[in-house]
This record gives sequence, structure tokens and C-alpha cells, in this order.
Amino acid sequence: MRSKPIVLKLGGSVVTYKEKVLSPNYEAIKRLAEEVARAEAQPLIIVHGGGSFGHPLASVYRIAEGFSDNRQILGFSKTHEAMVFLNNLIVKNLLDQDVPAFSMAPSSFIITSKGRIQTYNYKPLIKAVDMHLVPVLHGDAVLDFDKGFAVLSGDQIVAHIALKLKAEKIIMGIDVDGLYDSDPKLNPSAHFIPNIKLEQLEKLKNTLTRTSLIDVTHGMMGKISEIILAIRCGIPTLIVNASKPGNIEMALKGEEVVGTKIER
Amino acid sequence: MRSKPIVLKLGGSVVTYKEKVLSPNYEAIKRLAEEVARAEAQPLIIVHGGGSFGHPLASVYRIAEGFSDNRQILGFSKTHEAMVFLNNLIVKNLLDQDVPAFSMAPSSFIITSKGRIQTYNYKPLIKAVDMHLVPVLHGDAVLDFDKGFAVLSGDQIVAHIALKLKAEKIIMGIDVDGLYDSDPKLNPSAHFIPNIKLEQLEKLKNTLTRTSLIDVTHGMMGKISEIILAIRCGIPTLIVNASKPGNIEMALKGEEVVGTKIER
Repeated sequence: MRSKPIVLKLGGSVVTYKEKVLSPNYEAIKRLAEEVARAEAQPLIIVHGGGSFGHPLASVYRIAEGFSDNRQILGFSKTHEAMVFLNNLIVKNLLDQDVPAFSMAPSSFIITSKGRIQTYNYKPLIKAVDMHLVPVLHGDAVLDFDKGFAVLSGDQIVAHIALKLKAEKIIMGIDVDGLYDSDPKLNPSAHFIPNIKLEQLEKLKNTLTRTSLIDVTHGMMGKISEIILAIRCGIPTLIVNASKPGNIEMALKGEEVVGTKIER
Repeated sequence: MRSKPIVLKLGGSVVTYKEKVLSPNYEAIKRLAEEVARAEAQPLIIVHGGGSFGHPLASVYRIAEGFSDNRQILGFSKTHEAMVFLNNLIVKNLLDQDVPAFSMAPSSFIITSKGRIQTYNYKPLIKAVDMHLVPVLHGDAVLDFDKGFAVLSGDQIVAHIALKLKAEKIIMGIDVDGLYDSDPKLNPSAHFIPNIKLEQLEKLKNTLTRTSLIDVTHGMMGKISEIILAIRCGIPTLIVNASKPGNIEMALKGEEVVGTKIER
């Protein structure tokens, strides 16, 4: 068994149907639980996104803007509870595959300041990993010292815990294959990028944010901006398409898989 | 609005059917959510017990004994998840009544040592109360520095957070009316105790633990042993029958209600 954990992100657009409010992708959740079980990768921490559970409610109640109106308080509760519901579903599927999944809601142990993680206590998380449990965290509606409350993305959590727990690697399971050097829909000669160094990525990022590729990558550059903080400290990151069966299992096992590997 | 929170315990035998594994008492949960909503008591923290969700699983996997066998790890996960499921049900019922309930699993921010709370971070809990949310905690399967894991009772949590957050009072909602000076089933002249000082209670406790009253009170003396820690520091505690409609509402409003009030 490795001593350093792998941090696996399961994107919101993989575990839910993004177009339809509060609709889990049951099939994908079950398949991913089976892949995690087969991979037998320990220690492991899973963080999933909100997809159609987090974003629509957070948007209706303007949670990301912070507190300004008493009516938001119930909305904040409802946003958190929707995430807990999705988390419970994912944890149940993992338990069905005998993976000792252990739900941990970030809002219970993280407080942000202007939306950035400020106060946290990872001791229970670390102890859970020590006990061979598989903590399952999620993007969450959290309390914020400055704004009252905020939306804490799964990506920010991934980068932060990977850093604090000195993760072996990050696996970002999303719904596209990885990075291209230009928009493959606009440019037929666009090339897929299997490996990239941080320096090149930062150049590419500057180019891509000026093109329509932002949309093609489903906001991937926003995700990458978070993860860069961990990559810069030496944690390699693999972007892989979790919607394609088998990819997460292979990635967890350390086998060759189509995806983009980013290193310092 | 008061500045000090009320800590309300909802016993496991009130919110579940204790005889039948994993069976919530839907009717009681709905009614209690309505009572909490009508009382409009803020700030408020709710802690519920496990009843038929916590105890049977914890018992099968011997969670309270601590870690000795790898097979317990999955059992630990399952025990925690059962509690999260019950918690989610209670939170949903509160949200349906527009109470801004906010689930917080103790295992995410408390670690015990030999079963007693040792490391904790109540900042998110305190911040949630400040934001007028109603945190809903529960007895939980938690990580333990000495034993690997342990069962943390809702009663220990109640006493600890009441102390740390300087609660105004504790309301213990259980399934009996309160304390008697002897076993009412054995002794027809047994008297109900509406008020008792801590010193008298400790004497009574010594007497009662030598009689069959322990059974009549559904293990109430164990609960009281936990709560005494808070009462000793000046937090008054009211034991009230939460299975009788209206009692929790009246108790939260500070109205006269049949029950046993314990003070320092």
C-alpha cells in the first residue's frame, strides 16, 4: 500500500445530468463505484462536484455572492442538503461495492474567507485515511468569515487537501478527454495533449482563455487554475474522461489511459 | 433573539422505532419539525440520537469496542452512513417547515480518545449559529486516537457543545415524562420530580442505579451522567417527553410543561 493518498475528483457533469435540476446519473455513479472497487487503490480520497445538485440552487439563492438577505439562509440550507443527498447516493453505491466510503461534508470543517479556504481542520480526514476509510467529500455551501457564506468548489478542495495531505497524485475525472492545443471543433488540425509541463500549460491557458475553447472544455480552465496550486508544489495531475468506462479504474491503477498528464 | 443557544436533544427512541432495525418514526419526525418551526426558538442546535439506525449496526460490527479487525472498517462506514441517512430525513422535514436546518456530522470535526471527545473544531458550528442556521448533529461513529474508532453518543455531544458554546439551556426530549423518586411500576406511591437540584440528583442517582428504575427510565441515568457535566457548570436542563405532542414546542418557548428540571 502506498503511504500517500490519491485524490480523485469526480466532476459534477459526470455524476449528474447537468441539464436537469437534481438529476443524478445513477448509471455513471454505479459504474464509477465498481471501477473504484476494482482498482483497490488505497489510500484514496474522493471529491465530487455538484452538477445539477449544487449549481441551480446556489444560483437561485445567490449563495456565491454571500449573505445579503434573510431569505438566503433557507436557500443556503437547501443547497447544502442537496449536496449531502448526492453525496449519500455516491457513498451508498461505494458501500454496495464494499468500498469503505466515509462521507465528510466540507462545510463541517472548513470556513472560507471571500470564498477561499481559510480555517480548516483536516485531523478527522487524516485519521480516516489512516484507518483505511475512503473519505468522500464534495463541493459545498460553506460558511465564510467575510461574506457569511460562499460556494466552495470541489476543485478548490481537491487542490487544498492534495497539498495539505501531500497527495501522490490528483486524478481529475471529467466529461472530456483532456486538453487540446486549440479548439478541435474550430480547428481540424487541433492536437490532443497527452503530457504537458506547468510552464507550457500556463502559456496555453493564456492563449485558450482568449478563444472559444473555454466553452469546449466545460470551464476546464477554471478547474485548472485551482489545480495549478497543487501541481506547482509537485503533485502530478491527470485529467481523464470519467464518462468513458474503464478510465477511472485504469487511472487509479496507474495504467496507461487516454488523458492529459500535467507535471511541474 | 437570545444570544445563547438552546441545545435540543431528540432521543433515538423518539425519532425511530427502536424495536425494528433502520425504521424511522416518520410521524414523530414530521410533528417535531412542525413544533420546532412553531416555537421559532433561535439560536438553536439540535442533536438527535441513533435509535434503530445507530445501535444495531454499531453492535454487529462492535464499533464501540474499537478497531481490532479489518472487517469492521466497512461496518464503521455503514454505521456512519445509516446515521447520515436518518439525519438527512430529519433535516428534510425541518426544511419543509422552513427551519434552516444544517446537517453537521460530528465525525467530520470531532475525534475521541477512548470514546471521550478530545479534538474538536466548533468554529463552523459557531459560525452556523451566528448565521441563524439550525445545526443538526447526531450520535455518530467517530474516529478515535486510541481505539481507531468509537461510538460517540448524542448525549456526550449535547453536554460538550452546551458547555463550549455556553448554552442557555439543554432540553432532553426523550420518551418518558422525566424522573420519579422510585420506580412507579413497583411503587404505587412513587412521586414524579418536577424540579431537582444537582446535589439531590446525584444522591437519587446512587439510589436508582441500585434499583430496577434503570430499566423504567430507558437508560436515563446514563444520559444524565453525561449531562451532569454541563449542569455542574450552570446550564439548566429540562427532561421532557418528546413523544407527547406539544411538549417540545412548549419547552422551546420556555412555557410550563410536564418534565423534570435539573439545576445546579
